[in-house]
Amino acid sequence: MSYVKSLRGKESGVDYPIEPRTICDSDFGPVEVTYDYEAMKGKVTRESIEAGPLSLWRYRDLLPIENEPRAGLQSGWTPLVKADRLAKHLGVKELYIKDDSANYPSFSYKDRVVAVAVTKAFEFGFDTVGCASTGNLAHSVSAHAAAAGLKACVMVPHDLEAGKMVGMNVFGPRVVRIEGNYDDVNRLCSQIADKYNWAIVNVNLRPFYTEGAKTHGFEIAEQMGWKLPKHTVVPVAGGTILPKIWKGYQEFIELGLVEDNKPAMYGAQAEGCNPIVTALEEEAELFRPQKPNTIAKSIAIGNPADGYYVLKNIRESGGYGASASDPEILEAIKLLAEHEGIFTEPAGGTTMACAIKLIKSGRIPKDEPICVCITGNGLKTLEAMDGQFPESRAIPAKMADFDQLIQETSQTKEPAHV
Amino acid sequence: MSYVKSLRGKESGVDYPIEPRTICDSDFGPVEVTYDYEAMKGKVTRESIEAGPLSLWRYRDLLPIENEPRAGLQSGWTPLVKADRLAKHLGVKELYIKDDSANYPSFSYKDRVVAVAVTKAFEFGFDTVGCASTGNLAHSVSAHAAAAGLKACVMVPHDLEAGKMVGMNVFGPRVVRIEGNYDDVNRLCSQIADKYNWAIVNVNLRPFYTEGAKTHGFEIAEQMGWKLPKHTVVPVAGGTILPKIWKGYQEFIELGLVEDNKPAMYGAQAEGCNPIVTALEEEAELFRPQKPNTIAKSIAIGNPADGYYVLKNIRESGGYGASASDPEILEAIKLLAEHEGIFTEPAGGTTMACAIKLIKSGRIPKDEPICVCITGNGLKTLEAMDGQFPESRAIPAKMADFDQLIQETSQTKEPAHV
Repeated sequence: MSYVKSLRGKESGVDYPIEPRTICDSDFGPVEVTYDYEAMKGKVTRESIEAGPLSLWRYRDLLPIENEPRAGLQSGWTPLVKADRLAKHLGVKELYIKDDSANYPSFSYKDRVVAVAVTKAFEFGFDTVGCASTGNLAHSVSAHAAAAGLKACVMVPHDLEAGKMVGMNVFGPRVVRIEGNYDDVNRLCSQIADKYNWAIVNVNLRPFYTEGAKTHGFEIAEQMGWKLPKHTVVPVAGGTILPKIWKGYQEFIELGLVEDNKPAMYGAQAEGCNPIVTALEEEAELFRPQKPNTIAKSIAIGNPADGYYVLKNIRESGGYGASASDPEILEAIKLLAEHEGIFTEPAGGTTMACAIKLIKSGRIPKDEPICVCITGNGLKTLEAMDGQFPESRAIPAKMADFDQLIQETSQTKEPAHV
Repeated sequence: MSYVKSLRGKESGVDYPIEPRTICDSDFGPVEVTYDYEAMKGKVTRESIEAGPLSLWRYRDLLPIENEPRAGLQSGWTPLVKADRLAKHLGVKELYIKDDSANYPSFSYKDRVVAVAVTKAFEFGFDTVGCASTGNLAHSVSAHAAAAGLKACVMVPHDLEAGKMVGMNVFGPRVVRIEGNYDDVNRLCSQIADKYNWAIVNVNLRPFYTEGAKTHGFEIAEQMGWKLPKHTVVPVAGGTILPKIWKGYQEFIELGLVEDNKPAMYGAQAEGCNPIVTALEEEAELFRPQKPNTIAKSIAIGNPADGYYVLKNIRESGGYGASASDPEILEAIKLLAEHEGIFTEPAGGTTMACAIKLIKSGRIPKDEPICVCITGNGLKTLEAMDGQFPESRAIPAKMADFDQLIQETSQTKEPAHV
């Protein structure tokens, strides 16, 4: 049993049965899963959720699956870190890091959306799953497919980081490298889904896939003690996660699980790919696609599929956006690592850097609870740190040499986090 | 309050107060924390543990801390994966993977021992923590120190994998590269601990540090539903974890938390560094140190500090050991990834390869529950996979090119996990 009502054109309002579907036939807009919230009331409660498994599946009543989960049984329920050292450094009162760099099994937020999509692929009877990806999604699809015993074919831009390539290849998928950027890969995947009858998770399973991203928001609320942060800073790539965290917050409010504190949403982008932030700054109704050029490759999506909704939700919520340069991104990666022991990829550095800018500019007040959403792991993008840590001279294994080194370097370098 | 009784010479039986201590003064042997198990009875129960936090600190009554934990509040409680696809492939009935490659915050089992050691460093009033490390330990010490606001100085062999170097440098510790192998680094660290009054976690905090490794075993037992696996396969490097899993199992038996099913322990080593397995095969009472030469650098310790106890516990338990060659290690990494979606480092490949050898040789029967302990993450040792996945040709973002590629490659390659 589930509380799912229909697949509905987000703009058209046209209802469709629960089926693989990329867009609404009437207006070519997106489709979204709708639920019977009335039926949930009194049944989907804090207690019912707390009695569930320690994974994103504790929220299964708010996810579009009909039968038992078939993937991601250990995905989600990632740490919400109360970042007191970083809060002190930034002069803010209450700062949280929602850390999906520790997600399972592939160490990014994508494990949430893929867990739902792979389960749905089983329900629809597909034997092959695939995706268009900037790296993290292909990694996650490959890992989940391997664990579930499905075939996988993942499509990626030709210039991905080596770590991400090995990280996905090891699971044995077919990896197809495409000349072009993510937007080129994505366009090709729409055709592939139709022709090959594969479950391309972010194309023909997109309405189900994106619902998984709500769990990032659900967990923030539950882990804060059934409260919403007043300010949530989220990276914007294709535009899935921000609107879905927002939807998750609204669902929790609707069900009476949290109080409505009018949470505000903030979008974070790299300067080299910031169509959404540009639209916010220019107060434009629509965004203009861009050609990406940034070290934050996992969020380098110039034409975000759900960008319209990112803009809409940010504005509705009273939030805003910011962009970070490549050097600012690297600085923020180090700042987060040195204060909280968390090593994120450039996308996370972007989010952290933008949060800092929004705090410094006064857009986010220092005395209200702030949550920064970290969505990927730094171990997959080591290239981004090239040249940041010059190799130190190796010394002989002798006390005298050690003493001398300590004397020399203590004059020049104190550990940055002290 | 705690149940700690003393620090006791393991061989001499001499008791010491709870203090930083590397060895027993009377016989230069190791010292170990002892507890008052009688006082625990009826108080440390399945229920009391289940009511604890979702981290290794749920076992704090069996850990040597006096006050509140100061580190690793999110460490431990890693997935125990029921590996049904791999079990089927190997023809065994019940196979579990205890997956510390997903440990927090640094993605190896070392987060367990460091969480305890850093908490203890606070209790003893140290302001600097350090270690001798093959990589994972330095990574963990650096991350925990950053999060806790302690200074860190980590000592490593000069030839560590680049991923591990970046992975630790980002947290801002002082990193000292030493000419020589781990055993050389370790010897130097004993002198450093004395001279600098630093908490070298695996030297002068070793008795406390090692206790953290018990939690790997506690979690296996609790996650199996308060049962012990009949066979546990564990990598052997310095020799900390195998004896401590064994001690954890025995403590749970002593406290009546699990039934005594006579669990057997198996040691896994790389062929290029297998002093313990050689001693087992030669039925020698003591092991002979070796000069390591293997891709499994994180377990390349030729003179294991606690090797004597590894041998002793393996023999007492009725277990055995095996070694794996570098190619076998790489094959096992891929096998685990392709069947269970878990990407481990060469140490984990070693453990998996050795488990397979022990099963194939009949040392481990196919019809009894087996647990394989995976202790580190493959994303930190990407170099080990160099040449395993030749880069495929990039194709234009056109359907005709995609069709052709699929046609070509479907004739030559099926995804390995199908």
